[in-house]
Amino acid sequence: MRLSARNQLKGVVVDVVKGATTSHVRIDVGGTVVTASVTNEAVADLKLAKGRVATAVIKASDVLIAVEE
Amino acid sequence: MRLSARNQLKGVVVDVVKGATTSHVRIDVGGTVVTASVTNEAVADLKLAKGRVATAVIKASDVLIAVEE
Amino acid sequence: MRLSARNQLKGVVVDVVKGATTSHVRIDVGGTVVTASVTNEAVADLKLAKGRVATAVIKASDVLIAVEE
Amino acid sequence: MRLSARNQLKGVVVDVVKGATTSHVRIDVGGTVVTASVTNEAVADLKLAKGRVATAVIKASDVLIAVEE
Amino acid sequence: MRLSARNQLKGVVVDVVKGATTSHVRIDVGGTVVTASVTNEAVADLKLAKGRVATAVIKASDVLIAVEE
Amino acid sequence: MRLSARNQLKGVVVDVVKGATTSHVRIDVGGTVVTASVTNEAVADLKLAKGRVATAVIKASDVLIAVEE
Repeated sequence: MRLSARNQLKGVVVDVVKGATTSHVRIDVGGTVVTASVTNEAVADLKLAKGRVATAVIKASDVLIAVEE
Repeated sequence: MRLSARNQLKGVVVDVVKGATTSHVRIDVGGTVVTASVTNEAVADLKLAKGRVATAVIKASDVLIAVEE
Repeated sequence: MRLSARNQLKGVVVDVVKGATTSHVRIDVGGTVVTASVTNEAVADLKLAKGRVATAVIKASDVLIAVEE
Repeated sequence: MRLSARNQLKGVVVDVVKGATTSHVRIDVGGTVVTASVTNEAVADLKLAKGRVATAVIKASDVLIAVEE
Repeated sequence: MRLSARNQLKGVVVDVVKGATTSHVRIDVGGTVVTASVTNEAVADLKLAKGRVATAVIKASDVLIAVEE
Repeated sequence: MRLSARNQLKGVVVDVVKGATTSHVRIDVGGTVVTASVTNEAVADLKLAKGRVATAVIKASDVLIAVEE
């Protein structure tokens, strides 16, 4: 499967914190940790857990830019 | 200034492609290139151009996860 | 590949309208047409064109709900 | 009221799962189920419950596209 | 029609800048100007133009927070 | 720090409601209350609490427009 999203950062799941309906999944992408907020159902479906290889997918229109003054 | 966004990836602008109202800015973040789609006004305001140090900012709720089957 | 996104609507591309940097791709999903705004690069990479089988992918946190009063 | 969002999929609420602050609402849109993640306040305000007619509203810029290789 | 989105800021359109596929619409909300990036089709459908009463609608999950150090 | 986001609405935090993983923060922006859904980690990091000066940051591509018929 291929995706239109311009940003696909492959890494390894570092940890998964489950909430009542929403989980936070942290993925180590070459030393940088990316946090994703996904549904608990997605965590179960994709078997997301520490050590799982996973890709953080981000649409270009969801990226803001910050600069120092 | 500090931001609530969990993902703040610092890097250097690689290129800026301007459209009629929307520009695509690519930022090299430690070897990984992140693409952001922002308004042309933002490009002007932040003086975004090749070589500019910039941070890609992404909310955790805007990150999807993909895994191999 | 499997995705965390709860909404994955499979259909057929109806048309692609290219802009300067951003394209609008319309996908017929069982009679309902879903419009996606993606980068021109994504249109080229995924060879999106009329008749191409494609899936509209939408995160649950990007869906609003409207009701009649 | 009319909305700028290109995607407005009318259906019927199938179920509502409440979390601590965030609920997941599933809407049957002509046989396809669309999941929305909304605040608990929205569930109360809109009286979202099984059987309620509701429309899933999605901005074109929030739709990704996936294709088979 | 009622919407799940927590943020609905009513105002008056100040200007509309059309691009190839995407327009930028600025709405004056009680002295604060809010900019929306929408499709050209939406501008036509909703007859968006200077002086038109319009509401900026924003999901709570799309709002970031910034604070001074 | 400067941000590409077109919408930066400065105000004062009115209240913070914590969930299991996600908090809802309401900010009074000159009489209008804006609700943001952020991670609990962000609430802790930014010391978000009633009375704290804070800015609601919203990308133009995340703003929908509604009009009366």
